[in-house]
Amino acid sequence: MKVNGIDYRTVWMEGSRVFMVQQNLLPFEFSIHICQDYESTCHAIRTMIVRGAGAIGAAAGFAMAQAFMQNSRERSADFLAKAKTDIEATRPTARNLFYAVDRVFNAGLQSVEHAIIEAQQIADEDAESSLAIGSFGNELIRDGYAIETHCNAGWLAFVDYGTALSPVYHAHETGKEIFVYVDETRPRSQGARLTAWELNNAGIPHVIVPDNAGAHLMSLGKIDMMIVGADRIALNGDVANKIGTLEKAIAARYFGIPFYVAAPLSTMDPECASGEDIFLEERSQDEVTYQTGPDESGHLRTVQVCSPGSEAINPAFDITPASLITGIITEKGVINADEFAGKEE
Amino acid sequence: MKVNGIDYRTVWMEGSRVFMVQQNLLPFEFSIHICQDYESTCHAIRTMIVRGAGAIGAAAGFAMAQAFMQNSRERSADFLAKAKTDIEATRPTARNLFYAVDRVFNAGLQSVEHAIIEAQQIADEDAESSLAIGSFGNELIRDGYAIETHCNAGWLAFVDYGTALSPVYHAHETGKEIFVYVDETRPRSQGARLTAWELNNAGIPHVIVPDNAGAHLMSLGKIDMMIVGADRIALNGDVANKIGTLEKAIAARYFGIPFYVAAPLSTMDPECASGEDIFLEERSQDEVTYQTGPDESGHLRTVQVCSPGSEAINPAFDITPASLITGIITEKGVINADEFAGKEE
Repeated sequence: MKVNGIDYRTVWMEGSRVFMVQQNLLPFEFSIHICQDYESTCHAIRTMIVRGAGAIGAAAGFAMAQAFMQNSRERSADFLAKAKTDIEATRPTARNLFYAVDRVFNAGLQSVEHAIIEAQQIADEDAESSLAIGSFGNELIRDGYAIETHCNAGWLAFVDYGTALSPVYHAHETGKEIFVYVDETRPRSQGARLTAWELNNAGIPHVIVPDNAGAHLMSLGKIDMMIVGADRIALNGDVANKIGTLEKAIAARYFGIPFYVAAPLSTMDPECASGEDIFLEERSQDEVTYQTGPDESGHLRTVQVCSPGSEAINPAFDITPASLITGIITEKGVINADEFAGKEE
Repeated sequence: MKVNGIDYRTVWMEGSRVFMVQQNLLPFEFSIHICQDYESTCHAIRTMIVRGAGAIGAAAGFAMAQAFMQNSRERSADFLAKAKTDIEATRPTARNLFYAVDRVFNAGLQSVEHAIIEAQQIADEDAESSLAIGSFGNELIRDGYAIETHCNAGWLAFVDYGTALSPVYHAHETGKEIFVYVDETRPRSQGARLTAWELNNAGIPHVIVPDNAGAHLMSLGKIDMMIVGADRIALNGDVANKIGTLEKAIAARYFGIPFYVAAPLSTMDPECASGEDIFLEERSQDEVTYQTGPDESGHLRTVQVCSPGSEAINPAFDITPASLITGIITEKGVINADEFAGKEE
């Protein structure tokens, strides 16, 4: 996607160096971070300089390729095995990461060049699948639509285009007049910070919405459809996604508004028969009780936003049952709700 | 209610001075603000040192009584008329304020003492009606209940006890084991700041919940009932309350959880046949895009929490249709959903 007129992916490799949008500085600063070796790419994944399922997978593949380049003379099996373990340890719950590291490691056993080609291939596949999701999703968007989205499933979370936002970008590029209501997405505010930043960059009309205002907007007839991403999809179509997704899906159903999930097929987890099998992460309460941002002089500060004597809970994800989902937009087409395996109404 | 072991009302009058909890400093500092004359009480209402429907009404009544005391020798009709106009201009959308000022003004036409007695009476009535709401609401709460609440309708919003929290206080005082899930209530975070502060003071077990997590908690079976306050109630039972109330009511209905509104009968607006007749306030987008709180050294700072290039919307209230409300807890008893005039399902 373009930033200030220049095309960027979230992560890419040139020679033996890995480049990435420094996402932990967004939305207040746009900067490119450069990793000279696999160790610094590992550091970037661990410290969330790069984040988002697709982007992490691509970065991990590039890191594995870097390790092969660093070791091209010695071809030490010990060095490569340690590099593989190091990379896998950076974000041990990210499935794409293991998949990418395995592919590049196996290719690299033939030659360093094979490792490089495989890593580039993984990043290209991610971008292509996002592109295809956008194309299929765009067919669901009519001219003049107002679309609500939750969290950030835009290009920043993938290599390019994203999932939930890819149909939005395609609709905009094909000349449809659209408007996006961006859920703030407390407590980490990925909507207000990242999705809003992406849409502003792309020149797509939008507004940030407090999470509490979703049903209110729907009740006023202002929302034509909702599109969200997915962290994991069970075989019966239940979807794990950012906390708040369930509440929006219930509200959308109440008001008869189509509710779509956009995700690559790799998000489907064959080991989860239903949402009950999906492990849900609980994060630090500090994300709820504190907020960080620039003060009036641009200095980043952290302030307390809750009553000091009280604890907070911070469940990061919830499960939206398949029965509340209109369809899942994938790179192979839209799966309608009645096509899920074992779906219950 | 007790703070550090001492009983307080949110606002009271001793002699010619009006005392009030300085609510704009909460939850980070507890302090009592003193107003020597009606002009300073007006200033306190205008700058939201005192806030909440019931507390504003009582403060306005006291201000009118102060004006009579200030003018006890001259008994100038001009001075009293100007004072009345001044007080009414402080928060022109607060209905309780006009009601209280009228009552004290009319009483004061007999004597200054009548004005003082009437103002005290208004504050007492507010506290008594909250107490009665708590008593009726407590009958709905079973031992062991987990109760979710939204925004702040506690004693800080009234003279004492509050509305939505009054049943909670009563349940706690009568020995029931209860737990309260406190919706953060973005963007102004009255739940995380004021309700959490109140409950912490009262020693009632509770936790702050990001607004996005409400339906998730319900899906896990963690919520037994919801109680919220009301800003205005239409004759058909539609309720205007803090933004996000509608979304919670929809989620509660989806999961079969009782959803109660607690409010004095004076909240009913005979001029509103249904929710469509209620005017909804839109507030400044800065409340969404900025957050204020103490930094690590206790210095209050304002930080930007959204992408700088984007606008935000900030609707302050929404309308929950009567069909989603289990009952309205008033000072005269609980009105069940099927008793509302002209109710449509």
